[in-house]
Amino acid sequence: LASRLPAVGTTVFTRMSMLAAQAEAVNLGQGFPDFPCERSLLDAVTDAMQADCNQYPPMTGVPALRQAVAAKIATLYGQQYDANDITITAGATQGLTTAILCCVHPGDEVIVIEPVYDSYVPAITLAGGIAVCVQMEMRAGGYTVPWAKVAAAVTSRTRLIVINTPHNPTGSILRGSDMHALSDLVRGTDILVLSDEVYEHMVFDGQRHESVCRHPELAARAFVVSSFGKTYHVTGWKVGYVAAPPALMAEFRKVHQYNVFSVNTPMQHGIADYMADPQPYLQLPAFYQRKRDLFRNGLAGTRFELLPADGTYFQCVRYDKISAQTEAEFAEWLTTEIKVAAIPVSAFYQQGNESGIVRFCFAKQDATLALALARLATI
Amino acid sequence: LASRLPAVGTTVFTRMSMLAAQAEAVNLGQGFPDFPCERSLLDAVTDAMQADCNQYPPMTGVPALRQAVAAKIATLYGQQYDANDITITAGATQGLTTAILCCVHPGDEVIVIEPVYDSYVPAITLAGGIAVCVQMEMRAGGYTVPWAKVAAAVTSRTRLIVINTPHNPTGSILRGSDMHALSDLVRGTDILVLSDEVYEHMVFDGQRHESVCRHPELAARAFVVSSFGKTYHVTGWKVGYVAAPPALMAEFRKVHQYNVFSVNTPMQHGIADYMADPQPYLQLPAFYQRKRDLFRNGLAGTRFELLPADGTYFQCVRYDKISAQTEAEFAEWLTTEIKVAAIPVSAFYQQGNESGIVRFCFAKQDATLALALARLATI
Ligand SMILES: CSCCC(=O)C(=O)O
Ligand SMILES: CSCCC(=O)C(=O)O
Repeated sequence: LASRLPAVGTTVFTRMSMLAAQAEAVNLGQGFPDFPCERSLLDAVTDAMQADCNQYPPMTGVPALRQAVAAKIATLYGQQYDANDITITAGATQGLTTAILCCVHPGDEVIVIEPVYDSYVPAITLAGGIAVCVQMEMRAGGYTVPWAKVAAAVTSRTRLIVINTPHNPTGSILRGSDMHALSDLVRGTDILVLSDEVYEHMVFDGQRHESVCRHPELAARAFVVSSFGKTYHVTGWKVGYVAAPPALMAEFRKVHQYNVFSVNTPMQHGIADYMADPQPYLQLPAFYQRKRDLFRNGLAGTRFELLPADGTYFQCVRYDKISAQTEAEFAEWLTTEIKVAAIPVSAFYQQGNESGIVRFCFAKQDATLALALARLATI
Repeated sequence: LASRLPAVGTTVFTRMSMLAAQAEAVNLGQGFPDFPCERSLLDAVTDAMQADCNQYPPMTGVPALRQAVAAKIATLYGQQYDANDITITAGATQGLTTAILCCVHPGDEVIVIEPVYDSYVPAITLAGGIAVCVQMEMRAGGYTVPWAKVAAAVTSRTRLIVINTPHNPTGSILRGSDMHALSDLVRGTDILVLSDEVYEHMVFDGQRHESVCRHPELAARAFVVSSFGKTYHVTGWKVGYVAAPPALMAEFRKVHQYNVFSVNTPMQHGIADYMADPQPYLQLPAFYQRKRDLFRNGLAGTRFELLPADGTYFQCVRYDKISAQTEAEFAEWLTTEIKVAAIPVSAFYQQGNESGIVRFCFAKQDATLALALARLATI
């Protein structure tokens, strides 16, 4: 059987989580909270199940949830989507892959920014497209997107540019100037934008999330993807959404309806009810900023060098004062010997790329972070 | 934006359900139960949520659920799958589409049997494959697969044959002789089989479900797809599974992990718990046979002509004594004027195909069926 994805193995997240379990390590690798979500969210799902909301929802998603999403986007970012411009997806990954499958034709080029989340390139390959990688660069100690290089990578076959802010794994965020550079780059072309904003509610130090939805010129040509799992501490529920203008959404839904048809009904109703109160997502930056600071303060006394952490629930660290191992080796050693699992940032590069940096997830109980810090302090 | 699926509109199920709602018709169109699932299944999901099973499950599925599926298949069909040969999917549709995407290369041919479930051909198109349609034929009043024509459709580029038993929309089932014909046809080739068995527990009159899993020669080259939503009356939960031998499952998972990554955790745990008791699926044939008989008996006195209904929760009827309309027109008229929604079987043909037959779903409360029958009797 010839493979459609010959370059693909098991995701680094699965591998490191398995290794962490075997090694009985504190798992700061795969990104997920180790604390519960709010009880009222669970109760809302139970209520929906008991109210007989267990049959097929509309293919596009439960209307109340799509309306809640459109209202949230309008309030936070000022962009007016109709509820019909939103489709509920079986997690953000399904939204990303479906967006790619619906607009990338065989031979089309798609620009992605490295380090790149591991699902984008396989989805591009499945669509028959060609991933063109542009690497982020270090400026003033932090990862930045070199827009001149992105512009140089554009050809007549460029169909799509994929961006991700806040950025996994680097924890960097795009700023207003980045969005203007991107706008300048696509203006007058038919290049589309796919914006992965699953960490939209985790931006710190009073900075603002530069959603594509704040930039009408970009939003007019963009699929914007987000995740309820990340925002509400329920990564296992696999519910997300995609927002796009009508012409793009029509193509998205053609693929969506034959990929998954629709998404879990009681979860959709439960989340819709829960969204009536904006506090949970409004309070999320402060919630995670406190954990970030706790984690950074703990690491400050170690030989790890902290990179900036402006968004997401990830903290990247340089370990070159500790070890000359490759990132994969070092992450494995951390997991099995120090009993703290991490993710090698090299796993986010197509050709491998060693910069002596690993990623920790700080979406953990304070006690979990304290235990990890105590172990990391011994290095 | 050039479409990847130019031939695709909104599914007939969505369209007819919307029309049914508008017309306030009894909805015997889209296939879903209008009665609740068992309370203990809901409670099992609530228990899982409250036990903090809300983060990412393993990419392949919760082990207890994969073990329960493997055990069920071994008991019912005698095929030994390892739990690792099973992957839990976000509904059967996602399993079907992922199976197609993982093995069909651009230019490959895929044989499908018409009437054909509406998701197969778009998935083949997305993969870059070519759907080759072979039409079922009427023999002794019922739909049968003409295996000689299937054999004649095989070329050196045939990569996959998709079968579906019990069959949607016709309600026919494949028999031992069909499975032998299929085995003869693929023996010595590298053609794979994709078997859609989502109605496996709805086979009537003491007949047996000819799962591919009863036929080791076929199972060795097959993806077998089923659906918990159909079996447990929770079509909106969107949880299904795919079983396949290791080499096929490895390719399946490469696509699965970048399509949805994984499937709703609490639903998986709840279903796993519920599956400890085999009675719900063992009793399903009798449960639906009674409803089928109730519905058939009611229609017996009308001008509709009943087709055989050996499996699924669908009943096909010929209406040529009533109307000369096309199937789409007649289904619309039934919905808006008689206030009973049905699905035109022509929607399951690529080129349209008028045989004067529509499909009713009898997965309804007895009172719903009685109301529909009273209305249909007025024609
Ligand atoms: C889908 S599992 C990985 C979760 C995640 O996004 C990450 O750890 O980067
Ligand atoms: C996925 S919606 C349609 C349900 C169904 O399988 C049918 O009605 O045939």
